[in-house]
Amino acid sequence: MTLKVLGYAAQSAKVPLAPFEFEQREARADDVVIDVMYCGVCHSDLHQARNDWGFSTYPLVPGHEVVGRVAKVGKNVTKFKVGDYAGIGCMVDSCRTCSPCEKGLEQYCLEGNTQTYNSVDRHDHMPTYGGYSKSIVASESFVLRMPEGIDLKAAAPLLCAGITTWSPLRHWNITKGSKVGVVGLGGLGHMALKLANALGAEVTLFTRSAGKAEDARRLGAHHIVVSTDEAQMAATHGEFDLIIDTVPYVHDINPYMPTLNIDGTLVFVGFLGDISPMLNTLSLILGRRSVAGSCIGGIAETQEMLDFCAKHNIGSDIEMINMPDINDAYERMLKSDVKYRFVIDMATLTA
Amino acid sequence: MTLKVLGYAAQSAKVPLAPFEFEQREARADDVVIDVMYCGVCHSDLHQARNDWGFSTYPLVPGHEVVGRVAKVGKNVTKFKVGDYAGIGCMVDSCRTCSPCEKGLEQYCLEGNTQTYNSVDRHDHMPTYGGYSKSIVASESFVLRMPEGIDLKAAAPLLCAGITTWSPLRHWNITKGSKVGVVGLGGLGHMALKLANALGAEVTLFTRSAGKAEDARRLGAHHIVVSTDEAQMAATHGEFDLIIDTVPYVHDINPYMPTLNIDGTLVFVGFLGDISPMLNTLSLILGRRSVAGSCIGGIAETQEMLDFCAKHNIGSDIEMINMPDINDAYERMLKSDVKYRFVIDMATLTA
Ligand SMILES: [Zn+2]
Ligand SMILES: [Zn+2]
Ligand SMILES: [Zn+2]
Ligand SMILES: [Zn+2]
Repeated sequence: MTLKVLGYAAQSAKVPLAPFEFEQREARADDVVIDVMYCGVCHSDLHQARNDWGFSTYPLVPGHEVVGRVAKVGKNVTKFKVGDYAGIGCMVDSCRTCSPCEKGLEQYCLEGNTQTYNSVDRHDHMPTYGGYSKSIVASESFVLRMPEGIDLKAAAPLLCAGITTWSPLRHWNITKGSKVGVVGLGGLGHMALKLANALGAEVTLFTRSAGKAEDARRLGAHHIVVSTDEAQMAATHGEFDLIIDTVPYVHDINPYMPTLNIDGTLVFVGFLGDISPMLNTLSLILGRRSVAGSCIGGIAETQEMLDFCAKHNIGSDIEMINMPDINDAYERMLKSDVKYRFVIDMATLTA
Repeated sequence: MTLKVLGYAAQSAKVPLAPFEFEQREARADDVVIDVMYCGVCHSDLHQARNDWGFSTYPLVPGHEVVGRVAKVGKNVTKFKVGDYAGIGCMVDSCRTCSPCEKGLEQYCLEGNTQTYNSVDRHDHMPTYGGYSKSIVASESFVLRMPEGIDLKAAAPLLCAGITTWSPLRHWNITKGSKVGVVGLGGLGHMALKLANALGAEVTLFTRSAGKAEDARRLGAHHIVVSTDEAQMAATHGEFDLIIDTVPYVHDINPYMPTLNIDGTLVFVGFLGDISPMLNTLSLILGRRSVAGSCIGGIAETQEMLDFCAKHNIGSDIEMINMPDINDAYERMLKSDVKYRFVIDMATLTA
């Protein structure tokens, strides 16, 4: 049994997104159906709409920073009731039984997690459609509670950009007095500054442009280092416990490595590809430093992050847009012309 | 005040090692003077004798796997008395006050540790000379106790090859039930097999040559994976908590990355240079995996390793040589024709 739902889809890699009506399953026993209110716009929406990574299937309804109100619950649902505010991030399911799943690391599910869109449901094998739509459905185990009092619009990007930076901060035990570097100031970078600051760390933004200093300080950076300035870089040698590298394109990480403290880690959260120029092992060996990667975060960890943000009054810096503006918004994102996340008001989605 | 000591030195990068008499300081208050009995032959001896790394100063007396008997102690020495068996590894001093030094990580001293040879004493600025000699002197803080009952000849290589593999095993918490991969079967690799096995881990050797299987099993490997066999490699996907990469030359690590478990680490212990071909971030991000480096180990940790080896009856597999054989031994090492470490009987050193 299915329902007709209105969304906004790419029909191919080459055409703009446009209204699209699709079939959505009726709620299964463990399902929560959410009337979507707001959906953040992630770079991966753009990349998948345009098939930049080569694995898009069409029609494709993007959106994995989804916030709304519970419209219906399956008969076994216990976490939610109709009318609750709820959210969905990058995943809507996983095998739930493998070792990572049992540890709450569903993002690393050995069978692969089910992505919120451009994926296939593990049970009925229907395509998954994202948050650029009037309604979304998922098992309650993958639905987040929106904490009392949180700004729902500014919370939407927490479900991808927020958790993607929160998870490494927590995994590498960032706490009061830790020293954290952040490379890149975009959707991910601006959340890394806010969250690291709120965790009590001393936070440094690495940027190529000194012009970002004022904004970075407002967002939580205590220091700004212009990464092309060798003297500034040298002055931070041996400093950081963790560097969160949010840059989404190929770039040289060798200059950052000596700025890590002994046992420090540089973690990629935004770049999939070959590390180029080549990474030299010298700074790894002569300081037991690491280069790592991290992928979004688990469901329990995402809830923890939302609760933390509500408590510390943290949200993304957002610019609200209407649904028909999405194609223009993508063009602006390609020029980094957004501070720091677009969020779609789903009330503006009409056929 | 100095004494004349007979050693074996390279006078330049191009000539064979030969007898050489040098000046050694008299014992300072905290010094221990050791009559050298045995000295292991490390690849870095060869590289520094021949100035392969470009920072050798001549005359150069190699040797940093030094075992002998205490001949004299300074007036403030408390750890040793004349007649004790003692050892010296890769370092003879450090600043002792920086944060790594205070944590027992003297190998990562922020001022740089004082190397056993091809370095300069921090106090009198005399060159340091290594264990290819009749006598060596160092502060007691950098001298190791040789535990009761340990095989002194087989223990010499523990002071570099042993600690270099022990330190990452301990740092990454390898214990009963851990799964450890070892890449490369030479001086470092054979110690990694022995030590990981003795710590209770399930141990796999990655090798390009199936012919090493029998030896690897004898040394402690439970499994052998031929790294050029794609099916064998695929069968180990997601398996290892830690891979110790002992290969001393440039090689592709991308095939090993997916064999790491979630949160697994590949640690370089033998290769200084650019990681080539380029490392892809995919396996880092989609499993929170890390690539790290590790450099020898701290002094307290080296003592711990020696005590562990004595208790578990672990030594290096060695081939004893006479001092004049060293130049031939270097040629054999270049052809990997040694199982697995040469050790020089210093009684054979004569002018
Ligand atoms: Zn995203
Ligand atoms: Zn799973
Ligand atoms: Zn060595
Ligand atoms: Zn120090």
